Amino acid sequence: MHIGLIGLGKMGFNMRDRLREQGIEVTGFDRDPELTDVTTLDGLVSALPSPRIIWVMVPAGQITDGVVHELSEALSEGDLVIDGGNSKFSDDQIHATLLAQRGIRFVDCGVSGGVWGLANGYGLMAGGSTEDIELAMPIFDALRPEGDRAESFVHVGDIGAGHYAKMVHNGIEYGLMQSYAEGYELLEAKGIVRDVHGTFAAWQKGTVVRSWLLDLLVKALEEDPNLSRIAGYVEDSGEGRWTVEEAIANSVPAPAITAALFARFSSRQEDAPAMKMVAALRQQFGGHAVKPSRQPPG
Amino acid sequence: MHIGLIGLGKMGFNMRDRLREQGIEVTGFDRDPELTDVTTLDGLVSALPSPRIIWVMVPAGQITDGVVHELSEALSEGDLVIDGGNSKFSDDQIHATLLAQRGIRFVDCGVSGGVWGLANGYGLMAGGSTEDIELAMPIFDALRPEGDRAESFVHVGDIGAGHYAKMVHNGIEYGLMQSYAEGYELLEAKGIVRDVHGTFAAWQKGTVVRSWLLDLLVKALEEDPNLSRIAGYVEDSGEGRWTVEEAIANSVPAPAITAALFARFSSRQEDAPAMKMVAALRQQFGGHAVKPSRQPPG
Amino acid sequence: MHIGLIGLGKMGFNMRDRLREQGIEVTGFDRDPELTDVTTLDGLVSALPSPRIIWVMVPAGQITDGVVHELSEALSEGDLVIDGGNSKFSDDQIHATLLAQRGIRFVDCGVSGGVWGLANGYGLMAGGSTEDIELAMPIFDALRPEGDRAESFVHVGDIGAGHYAKMVHNGIEYGLMQSYAEGYELLEAKGIVRDVHGTFAAWQKGTVVRSWLLDLLVKALEEDPNLSRIAGYVEDSGEGRWTVEEAIANSVPAPAITAALFARFSSRQEDAPAMKMVAALRQQFGGHAVKPSRQPPG
Amino acid sequence: MHIGLIGLGKMGFNMRDRLREQGIEVTGFDRDPELTDVTTLDGLVSALPSPRIIWVMVPAGQITDGVVHELSEALSEGDLVIDGGNSKFSDDQIHATLLAQRGIRFVDCGVSGGVWGLANGYGLMAGGSTEDIELAMPIFDALRPEGDRAESFVHVGDIGAGHYAKMVHNGIEYGLMQSYAEGYELLEAKGIVRDVHGTFAAWQKGTVVRSWLLDLLVKALEEDPNLSRIAGYVEDSGEGRWTVEEAIANSVPAPAITAALFARFSSRQEDAPAMKMVAALRQQFGGHAVKPSRQPPG
Repeated sequence: MHIGLIGLGKMGFNMRDRLREQGIEVTGFDRDPELTDVTTLDGLVSALPSPRIIWVMVPAGQITDGVVHELSEALSEGDLVIDGGNSKFSDDQIHATLLAQRGIRFVDCGVSGGVWGLANGYGLMAGGSTEDIELAMPIFDALRPEGDRAESFVHVGDIGAGHYAKMVHNGIEYGLMQSYAEGYELLEAKGIVRDVHGTFAAWQKGTVVRSWLLDLLVKALEEDPNLSRIAGYVEDSGEGRWTVEEAIANSVPAPAITAALFARFSSRQEDAPAMKMVAALRQQFGGHAVKPSRQPPG
Repeated sequence: MHIGLIGLGKMGFNMRDRLREQGIEVTGFDRDPELTDVTTLDGLVSALPSPRIIWVMVPAGQITDGVVHELSEALSEGDLVIDGGNSKFSDDQIHATLLAQRGIRFVDCGVSGGVWGLANGYGLMAGGSTEDIELAMPIFDALRPEGDRAESFVHVGDIGAGHYAKMVHNGIEYGLMQSYAEGYELLEAKGIVRDVHGTFAAWQKGTVVRSWLLDLLVKALEEDPNLSRIAGYVEDSGEGRWTVEEAIANSVPAPAITAALFARFSSRQEDAPAMKMVAALRQQFGGHAVKPSRQPPG
Repeated sequence: MHIGLIGLGKMGFNMRDRLREQGIEVTGFDRDPELTDVTTLDGLVSALPSPRIIWVMVPAGQITDGVVHELSEALSEGDLVIDGGNSKFSDDQIHATLLAQRGIRFVDCGVSGGVWGLANGYGLMAGGSTEDIELAMPIFDALRPEGDRAESFVHVGDIGAGHYAKMVHNGIEYGLMQSYAEGYELLEAKGIVRDVHGTFAAWQKGTVVRSWLLDLLVKALEEDPNLSRIAGYVEDSGEGRWTVEEAIANSVPAPAITAALFARFSSRQEDAPAMKMVAALRQQFGGHAVKPSRQPPG
Repeated sequence: MHIGLIGLGKMGFNMRDRLREQGIEVTGFDRDPELTDVTTLDGLVSALPSPRIIWVMVPAGQITDGVVHELSEALSEGDLVIDGGNSKFSDDQIHATLLAQRGIRFVDCGVSGGVWGLANGYGLMAGGSTEDIELAMPIFDALRPEGDRAESFVHVGDIGAGHYAKMVHNGIEYGLMQSYAEGYELLEAKGIVRDVHGTFAAWQKGTVVRSWLLDLLVKALEEDPNLSRIAGYVEDSGEGRWTVEEAIANSVPAPAITAALFARFSSRQEDAPAMKMVAALRQQFGGHAVKPSRQPPG
């Protein structure tokens, strides 16, 4: 099998390597001339056998929109586009409809595993028709870890379902990380535990909380005890937000995942306006002292 | 009526004034020679008619413990101690028992109203026996706003109930302030509302959210538009914490009040260890960039 | 002044009364023949002097969309439509654009005050051009409480800003109600407070937590002590959800308001799937007993 | 080595088996004559070589208090008591002090692994002196999984530190389970995902969220698709509550873990008083309909 892969960033670059290791021929395309195998999209399209299969692995939103639009013009009837990025599930139907106007097929596939996927294989959640997913199965089998397919690949449902499952996966991930992190902070704050790193390390086997994230946590503490080199500043990408939006839209209480999202927002604030207001109110009714702002009132 | 008042700080000082304005004779005692009416506790005790009534208005915890202990030795059978501070409800029974060994009576009274109580009167929640509370009623009537007693005074229950009610009052207060503050931050962040101060001002009459705290919020924005002089740093005193502890002890979900408490904790953190850990985990699995710590790794 | 008012439900009916009491002539239109003053929209339009002013007070979403669409065809250049319902702020620009194609003017106005607005007046937050808002000012002045206009009316900003302010107002309202309710449940659960109703009643004057909502809470407990006639089942309308969505979109942590929203979701669940899963997990790892489902496994 | 083991319930019974399989001689004592190896505590004590080592595995609180008290009278100088139950960390010093008065040594040890510990081994967190922990090391090595000791055993710190670490472990566990459960509910609610069980199954390899709890979740769905036999009713034991109390005591924001705890409280409520109040308030200000209580107002 010979496929195209658009986007050779942190994820796509590794996936190209893994696919090749597993015997899939891959022509990669990226704007970065250092990374790309071909210089133009047309070059990519003409390099592939028909029906062409192109895996798209670029940032969600406008960039994915643009790539899908270009592919809708460059590809032919019967070709297949797989969006492996972190697109919002509601974008998938739009992309599928656009491509279908030219007879081009579409599958959305959530991909989990991060930089470790190259070595370990990726967890995959695909949405689309059974026929289209069967066509791409050799790719999925190459990307996922060896062993039972059902433990690392799922045909989730129709178009959009793959990205929906990936969105929820990431929402859960937010909650898991926040839970470990709260426990970490409490152990550090209390001081009763002499060896916080050793405590997490000892949870890796036998305990109820053992997980891959816990293993990474132990690794992080090995590399930087007390995390002294890292600021408590956390970005968030779309999927945590979309998970909470979907929870709201479906009347599902999601307090832990939402707490994780809000904690990230707070982590990026120097001086939260809300907390300025609470301080101001306490001063108003109780005459409580406030801490003056570091910023000049200018 | 002539009573003693121990503690002439922000609250006690104003209360002495209000009591005197309302015709109660007050001998105040404070460590600060600028504020006190008498130089010693014995001086206070000997100045009062029997049965003596002494209102204690000092910081909760060890300081209140100490004052009650001294009073248990200085007062006589039939005298009455009223703890008007923010003592933990579970301390009240301890204090009452200590005093009862000498035949001294005890009432706990939660007091709300802050620095505005002098002008407006205070809301009062008292715990103790009906007889003891009747004895102190002229004081309660002097401290509370004029009008229907039931709108500003309640005999909540037995000893400890007054402070319990005040604790819950303050827990609610945390949630109210946090709610307004979140709305304030959202209005500021969005930018669609041209006049945030004017918007809150216009909520003072007719709306569902009108309240005394809202009036103070408007006043705060009048005095310092954009709250540029105030840091987003908020202390908490015991009562918010105790409310959440009591919610847990009684299996009562209290997510809004707890959110308000945790927001205050977060507001005092420069670089939360939990969020350092989340950043570290994201770096581990996804190769996501982290913000370097400002502190040298020492 | 003579205006049209479309929608004579709980809110619109009272507003017609208040406007008339304040000397504004109102022709009301409603599908309910018992309520309406005219039988058709054309009848309403032809009854009004030019430039016509029509206040729309119907449910947000499709019904408001439909009314605005009909008005865009029935009205003439220079007429003014005011949407006083709880429309989503993002709908306002769509409505304004549709009407502007026919030269019809548009103002959005958030209205707070509920069934008490008839007697007390309503709090009003308007978005639109200064000229259009000036035109409608006699209506605003009739609807709002007497006294200083700035305490119950605000020209918030451009089109959409009025409904945005109302949305945030309602988000805050969610947080305020949840805060009082958590305190209520804790007082009931603990049992130390003999007279929960009396305690809330005594908070009405002098305390920090005094508010209009508190007054209503006291009234509710007067009418139904222990709330024994009311189920713990709470609906939510769009504005709480939109507030949280906007908080997310603007990276504003809003944990208290979100807690209030999720508490409503939970209140409507008999048997939350999430909690079935937590029970199942505890059984899996710890052999902990689970409560069997009341529903037959069908 | 020959030790005593008090408490042969779900955990203790399995631990006796595992210890024996690993070559530790165990005399078990339980009130249940079907389970116990000896009929009295004195029988247990006299069966053991000196210095005696007794592992206590009974419910935390009064029952553990009672056992420790009995042991303080039955054991001799130099003997060692290990509390492997889920005692509160603050109880450990009390127990240690009581035993030390008779020269009896004490170690607290948090044990994780549930019913799977028999087969997989247990994760262990021990507090106490280095000397005492060295004495018990053959027991720890027998209980924990094979392989690197540092991955399943930690000497956390002084007395109490072992149970503190276990408490935080369980707090994290609450957050992890809640996060998965929220994701599960959202997938079920949305309906876009055709095969929820298959989706979780496919997360077991390669994904960021893979964990032992996830494996159990998949197992639970295999055994009972849609969890139709299990009610959404979740108990909580002490450790989740203590974790939140400790978070508060140490000013650590712990919103995700607390959300998990409150979700359990809510799961056990038929008709939450707080939500009755919110419903009552909405009725008061907006005339919104309420759902009548199922309970007669009796």
